Amino acid sequence: MEQIAYVNGSYVPLSEAKVSVLDRGFLFADGIYEVAAVLDGKLVDNASHLARLERSVGEIRLELPETIARIQEIQKELVARNNLVNGMVYLEVTRGADTGRDFAFPKSVRPTLVMFTAKKDIVGAPSAKTGINVITVPDIRWERRDIKSVALLAQVLAKQAAAEAGAGEAWMIQDGKVTEGGSSSAFILTQDDVIVTRQNGSEILPGCTRKAVVALAEERQLRVEERAFSIDEALAAKEAFITSATVFVQGVVAIDGKKVGSGKPGPLTDRLREIYVEFAKATAV
Amino acid sequence: MEQIAYVNGSYVPLSEAKVSVLDRGFLFADGIYEVAAVLDGKLVDNASHLARLERSVGEIRLELPETIARIQEIQKELVARNNLVNGMVYLEVTRGADTGRDFAFPKSVRPTLVMFTAKKDIVGAPSAKTGINVITVPDIRWERRDIKSVALLAQVLAKQAAAEAGAGEAWMIQDGKVTEGGSSSAFILTQDDVIVTRQNGSEILPGCTRKAVVALAEERQLRVEERAFSIDEALAAKEAFITSATVFVQGVVAIDGKKVGSGKPGPLTDRLREIYVEFAKATAV
Repeated sequence: MEQIAYVNGSYVPLSEAKVSVLDRGFLFADGIYEVAAVLDGKLVDNASHLARLERSVGEIRLELPETIARIQEIQKELVARNNLVNGMVYLEVTRGADTGRDFAFPKSVRPTLVMFTAKKDIVGAPSAKTGINVITVPDIRWERRDIKSVALLAQVLAKQAAAEAGAGEAWMIQDGKVTEGGSSSAFILTQDDVIVTRQNGSEILPGCTRKAVVALAEERQLRVEERAFSIDEALAAKEAFITSATVFVQGVVAIDGKKVGSGKPGPLTDRLREIYVEFAKATAV
Repeated sequence: MEQIAYVNGSYVPLSEAKVSVLDRGFLFADGIYEVAAVLDGKLVDNASHLARLERSVGEIRLELPETIARIQEIQKELVARNNLVNGMVYLEVTRGADTGRDFAFPKSVRPTLVMFTAKKDIVGAPSAKTGINVITVPDIRWERRDIKSVALLAQVLAKQAAAEAGAGEAWMIQDGKVTEGGSSSAFILTQDDVIVTRQNGSEILPGCTRKAVVALAEERQLRVEERAFSIDEALAAKEAFITSATVFVQGVVAIDGKKVGSGKPGPLTDRLREIYVEFAKATAV
């Protein structure tokens, strides 16, 4: 059965899911997206994703065409129509399609809302057991990385470089410090057992999984410091890992070909992954 | 008659011109664009635009789905089908629509090529007589502005701010100097009659109209310096102006509400505009 997508009020086969060439998502990257994981047919940490969606659209003054409650209904409807058990729901909202191409915001144009799903066994992913290699690339993105916009060309180039190097992620470096991964948050565990991840700000996306993992760690009395760290610090660390909505928690076992820690996902990484999976399953809606 | 657009080999009414929601232009801003002016039914300075297109796609390793010669044929066909006399042809090429959403380049996916036209009386535009106001905004874009990508959200926000201020353009400022306008190159004429515009590099788009105007000025023994300038220098200048494919040369008469020169387009601006229009008409294809 072909996958069903949602486009502006209609549920259509993915091959027929289209937007106008005048859509501002296509012409200007004038749009915001979110990806929520699906476990056992339920949406993981979805309130956090929808809160970030509201924040992102607010920052670029894009009005959602549907209420947050209605958006979640559509997400659930799409999961049901696709009989999706494990995977993710992608959603994108853009400033719609005007009658022409002008940079300034169009007037009286209804924003575009698109969703589709994909299957993925996040919990059972082999890379969770083996960990991933990361490479480093300069962070060349714009200055408002806290906005989850579809202007992702820099991330595309970063993650393509990673793929070509046989790595699972690219860590982006600015002023000698890691900002984040191309599509994930970066963490290390120092030799004195402090979990370190960069503080939120315009330099990084405020990761939903990052936020949950930090909260879950703190609830367990683990020490967390939110600050920037360098690659030297990461290479000297006990462990390193990434978090994202579609990998949860995943060990980083090498950076630019140099081994991190034991060269395998560390015990804290494994523990945080278990804790997150438990949280995800317990709170999914 | 409804306008005709071109989408991947087909000429279709603009209202039916669509791309997949999986198109990487829509999902990742993984695409390049060009806009060429049309005068008297002919393409202005088109070889320069197509050369820049080739350079941009090369920088992100996107292969054009058609030869440059064929792309120009399609541009001309679209102008003919729309009976376009004066206006512009927009073209966008993206890395195509894969079967899912992965950041890294897809394999064996044909790039998307989209074109549409718009009417505009560039030569007779009232703003050429009156000049425009500009505002200044911080330049928050990524570090590869020499690539003409569709990741334009920063420019959208800059030009929206200009529109709200009643201004015709936003000049973007980095480290105290003007980089360029949201969709144009920035020039001043100093008190000692030197035309100044920022040198090409990764900080700005290498403007086709900018390049032609610099060459036309130099051919006429006018002094040109390619270097960065500040707003203070612009406010102290005799004249200021912008260039772009769809305005040609246009006077800047105020910056952030402060008058530039006489408060009207200056004589050199008017002269360069005339010279450019003459060049455009003489060389259009």
